[in-house]
Amino acid sequence: MSRRSSAVHVPDLVERARAGEVRAVARLVSLVEDESPLLREVMAALAPYAGRAQVVGVTGSPGVGKSTTTSALVRELRGAGHRVGVLAVDPSSPFSGGALLGDRVRMSDHASDDGVYIRSMAARGHLGGLAWSTPQAIRVLDAAGYDVVLVETVGVGQSEVDIAAQADTTLVLLAPGMGDGIQAAKAGILEIGDVYVVNKADRDGADEVRRHLRSMLALAERTEDAWRPPIVKTVARAGTGLDEVAAAIADHHAWLESTGELARRRTRRVRREIETIAVTALRSRWADLGGRSELDALAERVVAGECDPYAAADELLADS
Amino acid sequence: MSRRSSAVHVPDLVERARAGEVRAVARLVSLVEDESPLLREVMAALAPYAGRAQVVGVTGSPGVGKSTTTSALVRELRGAGHRVGVLAVDPSSPFSGGALLGDRVRMSDHASDDGVYIRSMAARGHLGGLAWSTPQAIRVLDAAGYDVVLVETVGVGQSEVDIAAQADTTLVLLAPGMGDGIQAAKAGILEIGDVYVVNKADRDGADEVRRHLRSMLALAERTEDAWRPPIVKTVARAGTGLDEVAAAIADHHAWLESTGELARRRTRRVRREIETIAVTALRSRWADLGGRSELDALAERVVAGECDPYAAADELLADS
Repeated sequence: MSRRSSAVHVPDLVERARAGEVRAVARLVSLVEDESPLLREVMAALAPYAGRAQVVGVTGSPGVGKSTTTSALVRELRGAGHRVGVLAVDPSSPFSGGALLGDRVRMSDHASDDGVYIRSMAARGHLGGLAWSTPQAIRVLDAAGYDVVLVETVGVGQSEVDIAAQADTTLVLLAPGMGDGIQAAKAGILEIGDVYVVNKADRDGADEVRRHLRSMLALAERTEDAWRPPIVKTVARAGTGLDEVAAAIADHHAWLESTGELARRRTRRVRREIETIAVTALRSRWADLGGRSELDALAERVVAGECDPYAAADELLADS
Repeated sequence: MSRRSSAVHVPDLVERARAGEVRAVARLVSLVEDESPLLREVMAALAPYAGRAQVVGVTGSPGVGKSTTTSALVRELRGAGHRVGVLAVDPSSPFSGGALLGDRVRMSDHASDDGVYIRSMAARGHLGGLAWSTPQAIRVLDAAGYDVVLVETVGVGQSEVDIAAQADTTLVLLAPGMGDGIQAAKAGILEIGDVYVVNKADRDGADEVRRHLRSMLALAERTEDAWRPPIVKTVARAGTGLDEVAAAIADHHAWLESTGELARRRTRRVRREIETIAVTALRSRWADLGGRSELDALAERVVAGECDPYAAADELLADS
């Protein structure tokens, strides 16, 4: 491993990635995902190039056809000449940490296309949530020059909220026969969607899902100039309706730009990223892997009843 | 509100709680849960008295009979002369923040018993996870002199892991007919249980659940002197088997004490508590609610490509 690491020349790798070399892109994402010692150097080298890609989150309950829709959307976006990156964040046990779906399965449709890069990432950290390294991986694809970065997540609670925090535009997928009432009634879904997609629209009940969703959305309080999320019907398997989805994404992007909301969302996203890095750095400083740390000493004093956890936290912060 | 707050005399409240006055206990938990300005004073006043209670987590999938088992276990522990506190952490939407089950429902069985205090708490913060204030509420009940504090959580992913981090002893409940294979195969369940309870043991399939669980547990690598989680069969509705559960909890507690693991677990728990308080304090310092914060300024520089998020995090930490 040390041999491979020592062979990496970061500026060269970044240059090759930006020139469209998929292997260089993959290598950069791996350095990020593995929390390589080169991570900081990679991030510094990418900094000048980031901030151009449109980041689109794709979420929805298992079974609504997220992967099929993502794949069809990639085809649509490629047809319009965009370079597209896809990060598929898979569920994984907090203990095993492994991704359930392999890259090869997802790649097969677009394997021969240099303008598409697809990558599965393990959802480490919290169950179903976004991987800690997802924001960094988005940054790699962005800096490498992909025009659109699709981030596909399994829609389980926290990841829905996370994806909305990461993306410029969030697509929420639904499908008939999936417990429609419950799907739509979930508060989270109504809060985060910028574009709603009713997939499997050739099946019975699609119109009802749309009707139900529309009435739920109508109840939401929105200001005069707020974005009104469109509802698009698709049959992703047949490639139907994806042009409309792509148009809705473009509309939303134009709205984000015209209102200044794009800059606000991106600043908010980066704030969160900086905060997470800072907190992680502090935690590892506090943990002080070698020997008995100050945090240990404070914890022992609290256990002994000598001070309370708030006073202990004050001391910890005063010294760090 | 200001009038009620100003009327609170914390040392007096703590004294009354320790004397067994349930209303004073309830008031202290509310001050904690509402993140009252008095929170720090409350925690400081409680510090000398904490660290005596045995904290027992009760978790399992919806439908296994957690509340019934908890209630029957309370009766068993009361019969043995223990004062018992119960914190029921309920699922809630990240947006609504409300607890689904009221205190009154849960109280009814033990309403006339001064030696029992039962409280529902909203699971704010992350979906299904433990409320941020749960460690503090445990601390209140502990300092108020409850011998055993039961923390009941809905077993959804993260909360299972959280509860194991908070409790001295974690009970994992299963029941026949709940998708047994999946229940037991979930890595999380096998990692966190100190005592396994197969509830509804009068139903078909209970022995199979136990057998399956036993074979899964046998696969886990354990050192010679490690705790071997017992599997207890109960029919909580009929009050059967709870004596065995109580005995298993006592056995585990004795093992924790004899091996020094109790002190280690408690120190680890308090470490986490201090860390969370410190991180929360830092986050709000960074957010700097009035005006444009340093974090905002850094985020804008990263968005502009002038620096990378790691360098920004370094600057943030250097200044805080």
